[in-house]
Amino acid sequence: MPKMKAAVFVKKNRIVLEDKPIPEVGPLDALVRITTTTICGTDVHILKGEYPVAKGLTVGHEPVGIIEKLGSSVVGFSEGQRVIAGAITPSGHSFACLCGCASQDGPGSKHGFTATGGWKFGNIIDGCQAEYVLVPDAMANLGAVPDALSDEQVLMCPDIMSTGFSGAESGKVQIGDTVVVFALGPIGLCAVAGAKLKGATTIIGVDTLPARQEVARQLGASHIVDFRQGDPVAQIMALTDGRGVDVAIEALGTQTTFEAALRVLRPGGTLSSLGVYSTDLRIPLDAFAAGLGDLKIVTTLCPGGKERMRRLMEVISSGRVDLTPLVTHRYKLDDIEKAYELFANQRDGVMKVAITP
Amino acid sequence: MPKMKAAVFVKKNRIVLEDKPIPEVGPLDALVRITTTTICGTDVHILKGEYPVAKGLTVGHEPVGIIEKLGSSVVGFSEGQRVIAGAITPSGHSFACLCGCASQDGPGSKHGFTATGGWKFGNIIDGCQAEYVLVPDAMANLGAVPDALSDEQVLMCPDIMSTGFSGAESGKVQIGDTVVVFALGPIGLCAVAGAKLKGATTIIGVDTLPARQEVARQLGASHIVDFRQGDPVAQIMALTDGRGVDVAIEALGTQTTFEAALRVLRPGGTLSSLGVYSTDLRIPLDAFAAGLGDLKIVTTLCPGGKERMRRLMEVISSGRVDLTPLVTHRYKLDDIEKAYELFANQRDGVMKVAITP
Amino acid sequence: MPKMKAAVFVKKNRIVLEDKPIPEVGPLDALVRITTTTICGTDVHILKGEYPVAKGLTVGHEPVGIIEKLGSSVVGFSEGQRVIAGAITPSGHSFACLCGCASQDGPGSKHGFTATGGWKFGNIIDGCQAEYVLVPDAMANLGAVPDALSDEQVLMCPDIMSTGFSGAESGKVQIGDTVVVFALGPIGLCAVAGAKLKGATTIIGVDTLPARQEVARQLGASHIVDFRQGDPVAQIMALTDGRGVDVAIEALGTQTTFEAALRVLRPGGTLSSLGVYSTDLRIPLDAFAAGLGDLKIVTTLCPGGKERMRRLMEVISSGRVDLTPLVTHRYKLDDIEKAYELFANQRDGVMKVAITP
Amino acid sequence: MPKMKAAVFVKKNRIVLEDKPIPEVGPLDALVRITTTTICGTDVHILKGEYPVAKGLTVGHEPVGIIEKLGSSVVGFSEGQRVIAGAITPSGHSFACLCGCASQDGPGSKHGFTATGGWKFGNIIDGCQAEYVLVPDAMANLGAVPDALSDEQVLMCPDIMSTGFSGAESGKVQIGDTVVVFALGPIGLCAVAGAKLKGATTIIGVDTLPARQEVARQLGASHIVDFRQGDPVAQIMALTDGRGVDVAIEALGTQTTFEAALRVLRPGGTLSSLGVYSTDLRIPLDAFAAGLGDLKIVTTLCPGGKERMRRLMEVISSGRVDLTPLVTHRYKLDDIEKAYELFANQRDGVMKVAITP
Repeated sequence: MPKMKAAVFVKKNRIVLEDKPIPEVGPLDALVRITTTTICGTDVHILKGEYPVAKGLTVGHEPVGIIEKLGSSVVGFSEGQRVIAGAITPSGHSFACLCGCASQDGPGSKHGFTATGGWKFGNIIDGCQAEYVLVPDAMANLGAVPDALSDEQVLMCPDIMSTGFSGAESGKVQIGDTVVVFALGPIGLCAVAGAKLKGATTIIGVDTLPARQEVARQLGASHIVDFRQGDPVAQIMALTDGRGVDVAIEALGTQTTFEAALRVLRPGGTLSSLGVYSTDLRIPLDAFAAGLGDLKIVTTLCPGGKERMRRLMEVISSGRVDLTPLVTHRYKLDDIEKAYELFANQRDGVMKVAITP
Repeated sequence: MPKMKAAVFVKKNRIVLEDKPIPEVGPLDALVRITTTTICGTDVHILKGEYPVAKGLTVGHEPVGIIEKLGSSVVGFSEGQRVIAGAITPSGHSFACLCGCASQDGPGSKHGFTATGGWKFGNIIDGCQAEYVLVPDAMANLGAVPDALSDEQVLMCPDIMSTGFSGAESGKVQIGDTVVVFALGPIGLCAVAGAKLKGATTIIGVDTLPARQEVARQLGASHIVDFRQGDPVAQIMALTDGRGVDVAIEALGTQTTFEAALRVLRPGGTLSSLGVYSTDLRIPLDAFAAGLGDLKIVTTLCPGGKERMRRLMEVISSGRVDLTPLVTHRYKLDDIEKAYELFANQRDGVMKVAITP
Repeated sequence: MPKMKAAVFVKKNRIVLEDKPIPEVGPLDALVRITTTTICGTDVHILKGEYPVAKGLTVGHEPVGIIEKLGSSVVGFSEGQRVIAGAITPSGHSFACLCGCASQDGPGSKHGFTATGGWKFGNIIDGCQAEYVLVPDAMANLGAVPDALSDEQVLMCPDIMSTGFSGAESGKVQIGDTVVVFALGPIGLCAVAGAKLKGATTIIGVDTLPARQEVARQLGASHIVDFRQGDPVAQIMALTDGRGVDVAIEALGTQTTFEAALRVLRPGGTLSSLGVYSTDLRIPLDAFAAGLGDLKIVTTLCPGGKERMRRLMEVISSGRVDLTPLVTHRYKLDDIEKAYELFANQRDGVMKVAITP
Repeated sequence: MPKMKAAVFVKKNRIVLEDKPIPEVGPLDALVRITTTTICGTDVHILKGEYPVAKGLTVGHEPVGIIEKLGSSVVGFSEGQRVIAGAITPSGHSFACLCGCASQDGPGSKHGFTATGGWKFGNIIDGCQAEYVLVPDAMANLGAVPDALSDEQVLMCPDIMSTGFSGAESGKVQIGDTVVVFALGPIGLCAVAGAKLKGATTIIGVDTLPARQEVARQLGASHIVDFRQGDPVAQIMALTDGRGVDVAIEALGTQTTFEAALRVLRPGGTLSSLGVYSTDLRIPLDAFAAGLGDLKIVTTLCPGGKERMRRLMEVISSGRVDLTPLVTHRYKLDDIEKAYELFANQRDGVMKVAITP
């Protein structure tokens, strides 16, 4: 049985490169040889033991690669084709998928829903920080990469671009909206770009790191709020002349940002939450207008599927958004443990790390 | 200056009937002689000092009556016409109104939004527990009552019917949905009726009072959960065979019901909140799927305006919903203090009290 | 190779019962033994040669039956289970499916869309007027029938109930709407029921046959317009006191009904078209307000998939809609040629014919 | 009674500058002294007698100016303030306004709807090609112009920018969509800009004039189709590799463009129609997929009201769209007859003409 290298979760604070068998290809699967992948903040949660996964699982959920072998029932793709797959790989046939909620896919569950069930790679099945990854339900999930795009150009499509854009989409950003994005990590930066693509005309980014502020401006932020310069709520209310924002996108996952996002909404506004939280959340009575403010709080898990991937790659192809400035570091798969060390500690201004087997 | 009787907030625990001048009619106003009105749970909050209003304010926000006099700029109505007006009386011309958020109307505010600004009667202007009420922005707010409908038939349109239905509307109930309504007070009962009108096929009402359970069944509840018979979350999950509900409507305003509503949602479901809260709220991390469940929390303040009133009266006229069973008691305006005493203490199985000057 | 009986299109005006091999089961398929099926108006178009299908094709697209055999990759169902499948059987994994347009499914086409591509049974693959039918993409399409429901109770779910309801859904019927349905054949009758389920309060059915008018009233029509009693447009405008309707549902497929539907719309209204047309259509300039009336024309092909089937069966289970009165005649599969003769000529007040192998 | 100059429709082919009384200001009105206005294609239809208006009516519906006098009931604005008003001036209080259909405003009509009723200036009341214009329902319609914006920068907001953007909005353009715009006159050019603002990544403009093609590219068109180079349907299908477009925007008002727009739609696509038609329209059966293609045809009349104006000016202020290249010619009001002569004959590459009293 042929072997491959894979980054495997061993125990808390231990992700190591190991040899594992190259997976067998089931009838609906595709085996993809990874050419580029990356590390996500969620992988760091896994590393630190904050998000539980099975010991021995290969981590990683952002694959770019070449189809090595297609399952016997898969049509519409060919071996040798360059593809990506979303971090979320819905089956296409669960009740969740068929009612427009594909990220909560649960094909094997009793009612067809599983909370976060669409997120399989590096969570409930082996992921893509490896030489090969098995893509389930390949017909629904493989996205053919246009020849003109490089691996690094499409590297953000599987997760952070899809997630970030969905912050603006779920918030139903309209032409002429004022939008704030709390935290300008990779997902927040993509939320800035998404808000611009949806027609927002005032886009406020909140972060304190100059490099992130700079990329935010490139991607569409019209104003930057640095929370070290004073209360961000007060600064945002001042920037909007007391009006508040139409849509506040939370892209960090903390009580502080969640609450600030709620406090800067105009009456009738929407808090679009992307963060992964690790504590209970508190909704202050006043910030919630006692339930009478026509406020909305919406959460979104990264949309996946090949149509999503196609559209995101169209955005790249059209030149409307360029996310390559986010790739600040590059490592060989062999050095992935060093990449984790850098990324987990957010050293050297790292935003995203390209990993190549 | 002619006088009228009006129920006035004097101080905490004191609403009394007093003589006040009949108001002068401005160019955009209509003076309406009240023929029937009612007391809302919110009025009880005012009585108890839990919701602050100015001393001397006439309370009440659910008017049925006859147009006594129209402002000089008002066209499209005639004196002597029988009308209702919504509890919420948007101006029609604020930025809030023009961006589809009329209940947060703020025509005089800097940006055209004021949190809960559309609620004027018995909140920021004199209300309708009186012989006369002045309806602002009459052209946007007066709803002509069809001759065939009695005062009591339309008495719920201004507030609880509009609010209750909006719970189902904001929750975007679809044909075939499973919906739960937490608390079967008048608003919860109207939410049950609204869920039925929107096509829900399983409607679960949660309450413990037999009379309310009975009305809920009449209005469309297919199942009743009595929280004294055991944990309502467990009961609802059992009723739905473990699936959870598509939409959970909160119609009470407490942490307990809010949290239970969140816990019974299927992944991707919507918590549609109608309650007026009096404490901060807590979102448990697990019930929120750490922010990854595609869950939505939406709040709605009673929609107003004459188009809303027209549609609600159409619902009554068509015979699709009959809310007269909610009128359990009747008082003269002269006896309104007794009516408050009964209603505030929820004695004698009271649901709604009709007050007639 | 075992044989089965199947109703096969031979040539114009010839559908005959023939022996055909029982189909082989591919990995994603399910073989269903038909227990009840029916004939659709579209089948009559096929019979008359007005809609072309391949010679030798088994016709019929409304299956109720028992799973005889599951494909090797199919999970989540078991042999012996009673099921239905929609007339439209989307794959779940085409671009059309993944962008919310499953009825135009085109998994094998270059871009993943094929006009009407989701309609496979009795159109591009063998249908279900036979002893057995092969259901493609079984995981996305099989709908488990609750034990409490009879075959005849769910017989309308695969097509006419789904189509008729979609007329109201695509028209975005709101609480308090006035809706007209042109033609009260089986689909128009289901559109009436759908409009009621979505909250319409005035529902006008247009037809001339007393038996259909009677069923329309049972399903929710508040008014009937008989076009033999005078111009239906004038009658509808009179019924609505000159206002016009919010949503007009066309359920026949002719210039006359299409144009009348346009003419009775209020400004800003929606024409929701379900009919299968056989000629070019003309939009009169005045009826279209020269393009300035904020009018919408939307067309919908029967939604399919197992979630749709589940919801429709919920509607039946809940008792909210009973379509069994539509089954006016019953035939054995052996006598299907007689059933066609009756149905194609609309003799004996036939609405729907139940066929049992 | 003080006089002013105004461009008045006298008879077919005669619009002349005349002296008229400066209008009296009613309680809800604002008198605006025009500083800049322009001529619309619709004005040319009026000039040619193709669209009927009353003799003696002042034409023009695109005002920029200074508030000269406010009605006695108008609050929230001040005399001397620089403002625009939309071509469409909804009342804010009709049933049409209150059901989200403000352009069909009919405050004085029996049911509150009048087809195209929101279009008042230069249609049913005196327009703004004059020294002064009376703005009805001023509180709903005046849009304060930011100091930093010039008259010419906001001159397109009242009509063509609002109309053009609405083509993309009503078409529900999504991130990654392919959109075609038929005819690159001023409204088509704004539709291109609107499609870009909504996230389209492939935007195809169809026109034959090089100057318009050039501006279209500046505003976001990624491809140009010149119908003199061959059948535009074939060219568009080739450009999209046979897929067709998600949204086709018709911005001319002819059978040819309407039909071509329908023919290039992918299954499930939307034809968003902005043109003012002057003949009946024909829907070819094949282009309409016989009613089975999930196609939508939506028409939109220019959205008005002060919130719309505010948002459009935000787009200008943000620098996201610059429409000043459309102003190709400038005239004094005294020379408006010459401006009409130029514009009506589309001489000298004219796109829009700025008129200053």
